[in-house]
Amino acid sequence: MTQVTRHFNEELDELKQRLLVMGGLAEERVREAMQALIDRDTAAMARVVHGDEAINQLHLEIDDRCFKLLALYQPMAIDLRMIVAAVKINSDLERVGDLAVNVAQAAERYVRHAPVKPLIDIPRMGVMAQLMLNEALNAFVSKDVSAARRVLAQDDELDGLKNQIFRELLTYMLGDTRTIQPGIDLILISRHLERVGDHATNVAEDVIFIVEARDVRHHADDDAG
Amino acid sequence: MTQVTRHFNEELDELKQRLLVMGGLAEERVREAMQALIDRDTAAMARVVHGDEAINQLHLEIDDRCFKLLALYQPMAIDLRMIVAAVKINSDLERVGDLAVNVAQAAERYVRHAPVKPLIDIPRMGVMAQLMLNEALNAFVSKDVSAARRVLAQDDELDGLKNQIFRELLTYMLGDTRTIQPGIDLILISRHLERVGDHATNVAEDVIFIVEARDVRHHADDDAG
Repeated sequence: MTQVTRHFNEELDELKQRLLVMGGLAEERVREAMQALIDRDTAAMARVVHGDEAINQLHLEIDDRCFKLLALYQPMAIDLRMIVAAVKINSDLERVGDLAVNVAQAAERYVRHAPVKPLIDIPRMGVMAQLMLNEALNAFVSKDVSAARRVLAQDDELDGLKNQIFRELLTYMLGDTRTIQPGIDLILISRHLERVGDHATNVAEDVIFIVEARDVRHHADDDAG
Repeated sequence: MTQVTRHFNEELDELKQRLLVMGGLAEERVREAMQALIDRDTAAMARVVHGDEAINQLHLEIDDRCFKLLALYQPMAIDLRMIVAAVKINSDLERVGDLAVNVAQAAERYVRHAPVKPLIDIPRMGVMAQLMLNEALNAFVSKDVSAARRVLAQDDELDGLKNQIFRELLTYMLGDTRTIQPGIDLILISRHLERVGDHATNVAEDVIFIVEARDVRHHADDDAG
């Protein structure tokens, strides 16, 4: 292994570690927003809404690392795909951070009303979306295509939960107009969580593309077998 | 100019042209979804829902062009930033296509009920979001930072329109439970259009990053002056 290759590999490892840190922050913010909703804790909601500095800084740092790696080492093949994917995954994680803010903002509105119902499926969606994100990032770092495919499979489940939540909330809203406004906020929260799952799906698709140099994004059916 | 540089520039121009075509398709699909909603035309809605083949193909083709340019020419500085940005913009445009599907699906549910109200502000949001996307892509192709900044400025306006639509629909829904279900679909459509604007904003931010090699994404206030 040449010295240049060794340096490149070290910096690529460092990049992956920073992406894992970024992913951890993004997950943590979704978790905090959901916990704040469950606890009806407005102080915790405000912390999520105003606490995106760390993730924003990391977003810039990681992009910078990617561009430096591309410019200095001019990587080819799987290394090139890995770094371009890192730029995209970095964007995905930053948006997950934004979605945590959206959840917290909807939660702030939600708690101005009496609770519509005990929250069961929405916290479940939150846990599932976080788990998908975590698994997708681990799949990226270990270039594990099977793990990436498991993430893709979970997206339908998340979608089913979202539809079930919608139908249930609609029943409440039709029966009692006082639940309309908070019900809409719960529907919006479920959509934000669905989008967290979408970003996890993007990451998982990138992993398959990196490893197989083959694009699964518009051939979901071909790849199911 | 060496022959390699000339080839690179030709292929970069070709890449930009393909991105413009992709952008045109994405805009067109949003426009069709909105027109179908206005006309209550379920056949047109179904065409949007099932008509994403062309945009998906172009998505794969453009990604492929970007990776080939990176691997063959190992571009530096502004050229490198341009191509990595093209990968990201390509993703943004593909998601805009998906959002057109989301609008059409919500429209399909919406027209199963009597109209909540004459649609004025939602079509206006649709036009504004398409315009932002169009301007952002032109700014990318011409590396026009001023045009990109104008796109960023429009995002607040789109957001204001979304909030106004929400408040107005809520009033209807509180007054007449028959408007709850279609009202929710209009709220969701306004959110989808807001996200089209978000993607235009992403493109505009990439343009500023390409040209100034400076990241505006988490310094919105610094750059407003």
